[in-house]
Amino acid sequence: MDTLINELETIVGKKGVLLGEDVAQRSVDWFTKASCEAMAIIRPQNTEQLSQVMAACHAAKQAVVTHGGLTGVVHGAVASPNELVISLELMNQIESIDPVGSTMQVQAGATLQSVQEAADEIDLQFPLDLGARGSCTIGGNIATNAGGIRVIRYGMMRQQVLGLEAVLSDGTVVSSMNTMLKNNAGYDLKQLFIGSEGTLGIVTRAVLRLQPKMPSEQTALVAVPSFDALTRLLQFASRELANSLSAFEALWNNHYALMTSEATKHAEILAGDSPFYAIIETLGSNEEKDAEAFAAVLEKALEEELITDAVLANSSTQRQGIWDIREDIETLVYELNPMFSFDISLPIAHMDEYVTTLEEKLEAQWPGVAKIVVFGHLGDGNLHIMITVRDPSPHSRRAVEEIVYGTLTRYSGSISAEHGVGLEKRDYLSLSRTPEEIALMKRMKLALDPKGLLNPGKILA
Amino acid sequence: MDTLINELETIVGKKGVLLGEDVAQRSVDWFTKASCEAMAIIRPQNTEQLSQVMAACHAAKQAVVTHGGLTGVVHGAVASPNELVISLELMNQIESIDPVGSTMQVQAGATLQSVQEAADEIDLQFPLDLGARGSCTIGGNIATNAGGIRVIRYGMMRQQVLGLEAVLSDGTVVSSMNTMLKNNAGYDLKQLFIGSEGTLGIVTRAVLRLQPKMPSEQTALVAVPSFDALTRLLQFASRELANSLSAFEALWNNHYALMTSEATKHAEILAGDSPFYAIIETLGSNEEKDAEAFAAVLEKALEEELITDAVLANSSTQRQGIWDIREDIETLVYELNPMFSFDISLPIAHMDEYVTTLEEKLEAQWPGVAKIVVFGHLGDGNLHIMITVRDPSPHSRRAVEEIVYGTLTRYSGSISAEHGVGLEKRDYLSLSRTPEEIALMKRMKLALDPKGLLNPGKILA
Repeated sequence: MDTLINELETIVGKKGVLLGEDVAQRSVDWFTKASCEAMAIIRPQNTEQLSQVMAACHAAKQAVVTHGGLTGVVHGAVASPNELVISLELMNQIESIDPVGSTMQVQAGATLQSVQEAADEIDLQFPLDLGARGSCTIGGNIATNAGGIRVIRYGMMRQQVLGLEAVLSDGTVVSSMNTMLKNNAGYDLKQLFIGSEGTLGIVTRAVLRLQPKMPSEQTALVAVPSFDALTRLLQFASRELANSLSAFEALWNNHYALMTSEATKHAEILAGDSPFYAIIETLGSNEEKDAEAFAAVLEKALEEELITDAVLANSSTQRQGIWDIREDIETLVYELNPMFSFDISLPIAHMDEYVTTLEEKLEAQWPGVAKIVVFGHLGDGNLHIMITVRDPSPHSRRAVEEIVYGTLTRYSGSISAEHGVGLEKRDYLSLSRTPEEIALMKRMKLALDPKGLLNPGKILA
Repeated sequence: MDTLINELETIVGKKGVLLGEDVAQRSVDWFTKASCEAMAIIRPQNTEQLSQVMAACHAAKQAVVTHGGLTGVVHGAVASPNELVISLELMNQIESIDPVGSTMQVQAGATLQSVQEAADEIDLQFPLDLGARGSCTIGGNIATNAGGIRVIRYGMMRQQVLGLEAVLSDGTVVSSMNTMLKNNAGYDLKQLFIGSEGTLGIVTRAVLRLQPKMPSEQTALVAVPSFDALTRLLQFASRELANSLSAFEALWNNHYALMTSEATKHAEILAGDSPFYAIIETLGSNEEKDAEAFAAVLEKALEEELITDAVLANSSTQRQGIWDIREDIETLVYELNPMFSFDISLPIAHMDEYVTTLEEKLEAQWPGVAKIVVFGHLGDGNLHIMITVRDPSPHSRRAVEEIVYGTLTRYSGSISAEHGVGLEKRDYLSLSRTPEEIALMKRMKLALDPKGLLNPGKILA
């Protein structure tokens, strides 16, 4: 393999190749902090270099694993000692911005936050947002079709991408850098690369759609007396705040109570005895009118007994305090250690029953030990579920997975709403997808990567 | 072939097969009214029948052309005497509606209007909207990734589809009827079938996303003094009306003047001497507040000289009168007969220069004869361009196409924003897409339809 590494070094230069300790010190999984085992990390500086790298790997039948910001949680970045890592970290430029067309052209290694800030500078916004904004990259957001907290208003990453450029497994560069909102001239090739977790091509650049900036942000934390009230509140908020509703996050009591307990550092903004809480956020252009409209909607929700209490943030500090409860995953990881994390979606109407069933099954199997915490993007049908049975063994993990995923099939839910499949959920894919769907995925994989060099074993066995 | 037709008749029954005059009387093109030349029209009643039909066609290497509502304008429905037509017209049921999840499950042959009405009945909306709503079908909307007048707010058809079911060329049924907003469990297979014009599979059913109903609709026609003012007006409206802006349609003077001339039946709502007009529409939930906010924005636009005059519709009749000017394509077809129709997109900043160049080139080649009419979805970068040189010959068509598409390449525009490619634009595909993109499209076509049986020759030669 030294021959190949030498060949790649002539393409990307000395600083483009990391070996030994430089490889091992990288963590490939945000939760587990597992070390990178790849034989080397190759860091192209531009698309042309990556194209040559892949052509050489293709000739040598060398498998590669692509790395973005390494904030994924489904072992999508895991690489074995006989694999090479391709890291886009040196391709992190924002190449151009078009304020009239509201588009931005970036390299795949640019961080989400740098893109958000560049949009902000010209008085526009890039609406995708998630906790890992400072580290995660646009390429990773594309490869995993990232979701986050504003999907209800702006959609997932798929909707933010107008065009992209990708390098195929044989080094072919497919440049599909469309800048227009509408383009029906032939197949929409970018869709192949969005959400396929680097298994069909390596995304190198993208044209992103920007949105008008929304200077007025209204945020409230509300206490909700029942799950039925929670779903009615969602419908009510969707209707009354229709155009401006940008987030509707639900927190089960097990989440809120833990996050505001003495052990953790968050203020108990509302009394902790409510079965459900929700964070509701709107984005608009008129602070005064929006605040008034938002307060009126909350008042009406109180009158109609959809909520029992509410706090409307009246400063950015208060706003941050509310969001911190939701976004402080570190505390959850610490409190629930060793933790198994799930990211599922199912029809909203079934969520309460689903979670109750999980609680019962966990308690039956690990009485007095199992702990479950539930929160998530209710408006998107997406729940994050954190479970500990105080035992990290593969055996326990499998037992918990079987409860979580096994129960999910009753409701035709998805084993992955936004985190992707990676290696972690691969063996459960058939619970969410039919044999015909999986056969078609394999057909696509074979058509685009016949030698199976791109992220082998991820998503599909 | 009689053997195959007999075999298919045993699958779909007598009423499922149309022959002779029943075939010829169908028009396959909305503009030209060209007659259908297929050997037969096969009308399955359900997915299982279609699966059997395709299995039989696959065994017999029989090519098929899929028909929806036959409102396409790029010869996508043209079928030759050695081809069979598959029509989804007997599969037009709305199967179920979920008001909590805001989803609707339909068969592909359901008309867009029937879906809109069914959503309306449960106080939700299906936001895709276009002039052909009464005839076009959901399957056709999916196959062509239909756009229409509300893309700026809700996106194209691609964004309205949560899941779908398709029959592949060998009869395999791929059921990917996802009902959730978020599902990253493996490749998003539905993207393969959306916008690929029936060349990769036949869409049979779909899960559609519904949106909150917007009872308050504000519509204005405004006169705009220059193209620069028009683009600034778009940016202004996008910012000020951000959340509620649902349509921003531009009419060049050549369009408005023709549509409000004595020969046509539309009232001249504003004086006809302005170089540009725009129809601006918002959707909201509070009639009184929305009307007030909309009027204030228009007033500010007047003050800032972005517009010189405005009429705000204060009844649904007035609103319809404004939209009629935009949607009355029949009058254009009549007035510009014989007409060549184009549907292009390009960066907004270049539109004025592009249209001026077309006018000059047309005038140079057909002095005093050529007539061009321009209007479209400015906010989406999409213009519809209608041209007559009073000669329908293929020679003249080609000469006009070369001017329209040839000039477009300067601006990296697209030969098709929303109508698709079909047969009509196939020979120009390479002007909008790179050789690598077209090669990848062919690779996908080969992977999904190796015998080339589905809509052969459409999009790709």
